[in-house]
Amino acid sequence: MANTDSVGVKVFSLNCWGIRYMSKHCPQRYAMIGEMLCNEDHDIVLLQEVWSEKDFLYLKKKLACSHPHSHYFKSGVIGSGLAIFSKHRIRDTFLYRYSLNGYPYMVHHGDWFGGKAVGMAVVNLGSLTANVYVTHLHAEYCREKDSYLPHRVVQAWELQQFVRHTSAGADMVILGGDLNMHPRDLGNRLLRSYTGLRDSYLETVKFDGCEDGMTLIADNPFISRKELVPFEKGIRIDYILFQGSSKTDIYCDSMSTTKGSLPDRPFPYSDHEALTAELRLKSHIPAETGSDRQAKSHDSAAGKLAELIDIVTEARTEVKVGLHCAERMRYTAARTGVMGLALLFLELAIAAVPWLALGAEQPFPRTSFYLLAALCFAILLTTSLLYIFYTMELKSLQGAEDQMRLAVGSLQEKLRGFPVAQPHKALRRPPEGQEPGAFGPEE
Amino acid sequence: MANTDSVGVKVFSLNCWGIRYMSKHCPQRYAMIGEMLCNEDHDIVLLQEVWSEKDFLYLKKKLACSHPHSHYFKSGVIGSGLAIFSKHRIRDTFLYRYSLNGYPYMVHHGDWFGGKAVGMAVVNLGSLTANVYVTHLHAEYCREKDSYLPHRVVQAWELQQFVRHTSAGADMVILGGDLNMHPRDLGNRLLRSYTGLRDSYLETVKFDGCEDGMTLIADNPFISRKELVPFEKGIRIDYILFQGSSKTDIYCDSMSTTKGSLPDRPFPYSDHEALTAELRLKSHIPAETGSDRQAKSHDSAAGKLAELIDIVTEARTEVKVGLHCAERMRYTAARTGVMGLALLFLELAIAAVPWLALGAEQPFPRTSFYLLAALCFAILLTTSLLYIFYTMELKSLQGAEDQMRLAVGSLQEKLRGFPVAQPHKALRRPPEGQEPGAFGPEE
Repeated sequence: MANTDSVGVKVFSLNCWGIRYMSKHCPQRYAMIGEMLCNEDHDIVLLQEVWSEKDFLYLKKKLACSHPHSHYFKSGVIGSGLAIFSKHRIRDTFLYRYSLNGYPYMVHHGDWFGGKAVGMAVVNLGSLTANVYVTHLHAEYCREKDSYLPHRVVQAWELQQFVRHTSAGADMVILGGDLNMHPRDLGNRLLRSYTGLRDSYLETVKFDGCEDGMTLIADNPFISRKELVPFEKGIRIDYILFQGSSKTDIYCDSMSTTKGSLPDRPFPYSDHEALTAELRLKSHIPAETGSDRQAKSHDSAAGKLAELIDIVTEARTEVKVGLHCAERMRYTAARTGVMGLALLFLELAIAAVPWLALGAEQPFPRTSFYLLAALCFAILLTTSLLYIFYTMELKSLQGAEDQMRLAVGSLQEKLRGFPVAQPHKALRRPPEGQEPGAFGPEE
Repeated sequence: MANTDSVGVKVFSLNCWGIRYMSKHCPQRYAMIGEMLCNEDHDIVLLQEVWSEKDFLYLKKKLACSHPHSHYFKSGVIGSGLAIFSKHRIRDTFLYRYSLNGYPYMVHHGDWFGGKAVGMAVVNLGSLTANVYVTHLHAEYCREKDSYLPHRVVQAWELQQFVRHTSAGADMVILGGDLNMHPRDLGNRLLRSYTGLRDSYLETVKFDGCEDGMTLIADNPFISRKELVPFEKGIRIDYILFQGSSKTDIYCDSMSTTKGSLPDRPFPYSDHEALTAELRLKSHIPAETGSDRQAKSHDSAAGKLAELIDIVTEARTEVKVGLHCAERMRYTAARTGVMGLALLFLELAIAAVPWLALGAEQPFPRTSFYLLAALCFAILLTTSLLYIFYTMELKSLQGAEDQMRLAVGSLQEKLRGFPVAQPHKALRRPPEGQEPGAFGPEE
């Protein structure tokens, strides 16, 4: 940290790919990560996929001198995998578990068991307060036919809600993590438009890293090129986002990523690239209040609002698609369950008839009878569990859709309040790199 | 609402006991509730246990003129049962699902299926913003041996976190609902001490209602006296809590509850009593800054802080009890699962031996074999599911305990910062009715 006028904050974010006994060179990589974090002078370190608490404790021990404050966020069956290390005191923590997070029966994808969440830490930076968020959204396994898209959109929705509602008292907001979304993906636009969070890669003065700021690249030895198709060179899915407050301005002086391999090391820290951003916080300079500038800013605010309405509407459509899908799945589960029940009754009837009417003249096929009964019970149990699960999924999707509908109404009301009303349908999306702007409750 | 200096807000809260086909006189009671709400001039109506969306839609239709703004919070399998109606525009909503909420196999208690949560609505009161919260915590089925106590304490912990972190931008905070906790219960003290929320029953100038503000009373025809033992007359578990901000002061002018029966009606609205509080919001009068008063207020702030540390420590102990219990349960599930597996192997061995060694000389007991195999599989499946569930419970409890430990450290640090350090062990709890005070991040 520099003088009182301007406070520097160095932020680090990395998806550690820390599946014990499964991820390649896991212990060696943790040792490398620990060593590097010890030497570099990061104020705040945000880690994802630290699946084992033992690995967290290893890092905690290693970083005891450089980063005395830390928190590991626990959730789900395995854990959220989220960890934070800080040079500065962590005053408070809070965890929000996303309501949707894939399906428990997709065991090979494993996201459900991770209990994906967003962790928040309130960090004291001298007299200033920083709300630091770390998160990891549901993975994208197939971009063309992404059955998890509604889940990820709802996660992005809940993430923006959480950040927006919990950050009103903070001087500075920092969000780091693996969002599993490309820069122009719906969830990313939703998050950035609604909260006003700025992307350090787009905002930085100096940049040193992979082309287009990519964080999952073909040059990384842990990445198979097949996974990346059709993005041969790589994709950008990890971010450090930031925001000031009404009292503070914030800038990104420099940003860097690792580049797939490390000098003098046999392999990189992880299958994802690590991000470092150097942010600078300054006390706020009041904006000009000339009427011309005001009218201009009104125009642009109205434009941004209209843009946000479009994005929320798009997200609502996506959630509706998820709703229809969940409804269909629940219906299928119910139908299969009813068929299992019918089969059971049929079997009982068949079993009852020879005993009651014909007596024990012919041998009763016990083996088949018990096997079939077991099958019926298995079907009934599985479909019941699935029915319960899909009902919960439906409720969460409906809840998100309701909230989005209300949000659109509320934003439209706000838009009507602007002096120059602009028909939002005519507006186009801004090109990549343009900041969408914030519409939080603090406005 | 009155003039600009002082804004009046009339708040209503009721646990509707709305289990379709199960709760007595459910449709008639909803009709009565709808009619009453239509006639009374409540600004904000907070309802719990509106389990069916149809009933919510019925009320929404009925209150379309008096309360044009509403939201129904969806969660869990059945729903959260939470609903809010407002005269004023609801600008935004947000739902936080508690991480712990009983056990799915306690079907007769049903709390797990409800998906208990706290719903938040940001309401515009003219130029002011009110954050309105509605919640319903896990029921207490047996006060002497309350196996759900750790769950309820964690719910109270998460509730205070949610309120504290989301209310920094609000001019006014209102929390209404069925907390299922007596006034001096641990969770209640935790909630009120940490957030600084004030209890309208304790703060009101005028009160009209049941003795001691009770909301579950023996005089209610839907209540069996047996349930209330040892509290013969009743208990107070429903609340309307409130808080101003650094810019506003808030007062409770009057508070009332229903009294078990209604004039000219065959039965009351619900098995719980309804609460109404008339709050008044005033722009803040700056506090005196005389050094004597300041020192005094420092002393009392340190005392309150020490008191809060005690409460959080007590809550941590309770969560640890829950942790031990969950660990034991998970161990039992694992052991039973291993026994099921051993039984299965034994059976397979027995089945394999006569075929391989003795041939088919004696008839193979197929019936017993299949029954036993089915039993083994049932044991394995059930114990696996239980193991997963208890692991999730453990993670949530550990997470809450970690957060509490961090909070205690943070509060102790704060206490050390006070000029007159007070040993907090020497402090006793204030008597019922005294306000514990707030230690939110906004301080």
